[in-house]
Amino acid sequence: MQRYFSKEKIGNYLKLSDNDLYHIRTVMRMNNSDKIEIVYNQELYLCELEENMGKIIKKEATNLINKLNITLVVPLLKEQKMDLILQKSTELGVDVIIPAIMERSIIKIDDRKVKQKIERWQKICKEASEQSKRLDIPKVADIHTFNDLKSIDGVKLICSTSEKTQNLKNIIKKCQNYDKIILVIGPEGGLSEKEEKYLKEIGFISISLGNRIMRVETVPLFLLSIFNYESME
Amino acid sequence: MQRYFSKEKIGNYLKLSDNDLYHIRTVMRMNNSDKIEIVYNQELYLCELEENMGKIIKKEATNLINKLNITLVVPLLKEQKMDLILQKSTELGVDVIIPAIMERSIIKIDDRKVKQKIERWQKICKEASEQSKRLDIPKVADIHTFNDLKSIDGVKLICSTSEKTQNLKNIIKKCQNYDKIILVIGPEGGLSEKEEKYLKEIGFISISLGNRIMRVETVPLFLLSIFNYESME
Repeated sequence: MQRYFSKEKIGNYLKLSDNDLYHIRTVMRMNNSDKIEIVYNQELYLCELEENMGKIIKKEATNLINKLNITLVVPLLKEQKMDLILQKSTELGVDVIIPAIMERSIIKIDDRKVKQKIERWQKICKEASEQSKRLDIPKVADIHTFNDLKSIDGVKLICSTSEKTQNLKNIIKKCQNYDKIILVIGPEGGLSEKEEKYLKEIGFISISLGNRIMRVETVPLFLLSIFNYESME
Repeated sequence: MQRYFSKEKIGNYLKLSDNDLYHIRTVMRMNNSDKIEIVYNQELYLCELEENMGKIIKKEATNLINKLNITLVVPLLKEQKMDLILQKSTELGVDVIIPAIMERSIIKIDDRKVKQKIERWQKICKEASEQSKRLDIPKVADIHTFNDLKSIDGVKLICSTSEKTQNLKNIIKKCQNYDKIILVIGPEGGLSEKEEKYLKEIGFISISLGNRIMRVETVPLFLLSIFNYESME
């Protein structure tokens, strides 16, 4: 069944956005009284379509997934790669995506287009959340500099291309109890020495991801797959 | 440095294919005596370009990655999804990819185009191997039916959408010593009951990948990431 997110509950009704209504009516060709799923405030409702709202039939039981909070800090990338990261990371359970300015990233975003970009990225996450039946939508943050990461807390890791001794598996074993993790992924060519040094100064730990040479956009999927695996019981 | 694969060694020279020469001369604009890396017979050589050959300067030491042999059995998918699987699985270390006919796959390939398709898929794997600096190229097999999987051996797993009790982590813990693993990934909508039953009859084990709902093309990356992680020391 199709799933949508609503931001407003009015009595027994959940309001649908214009974009979703276009999808429901024009793309899916649904009619009044057809059934849809609507998520509101991380709760799932079975609803019946009624004009521009979903009429709640019942609240559904949900299977909450073991909750580790994961933040990805990613470089600015070409559109196709960024879209892949946003879509796949959403499927694999990311919570926050922070696009960050990094020395070796070749992509520059025109200041006047930043707001529009972030809205577009947020929309990709929303659609992927619907498709993968999530109860929440990952947040795409504003574009950060590394300086802005000073006050972030959690287990803070840098995917390093120079680190040789400490790998992801070692570090996960060491951190038995963690509920929040922040992962910095460098651009093609890696983080600069200066950047890695700065991140270490503000509490990040460099780790290796093993011997394989992965493209930048593969790294988030690699990491999130592993955290999903680690949380299997 | 750019890496290419050669299939022929003549004395101190490694022969380059016409496609690679086009890439070297026209795309990369390289000239005679420019340096390239050439892999021949899973050995890496530093070479100097000389007409249509690489002249061997020296054999390089290589860092062989802990070798678990992984075969992916995947449904026929739309081009973009298939390409993503081929490229990313190669980066993440797959050894064999078997495209297989499955009941719920909506893609049909014209018999006359099969050979051409497989050549195209094989080429994607070759290019991804070069980019990710592998010493071998994954093999793309002919299109199989499940019947053809009868005689395959190794740890044989089905990524099941119906299995609830046994998950990937349990099974990896149980199989302490394995050097070959075969993973069957179903199409959108999953394998049919009949297909899963048949695979079990020929020695496959159904496993769950956890609670997330992933798109088909995400599953191979998820699995390969985990096997890479498991092989970290």
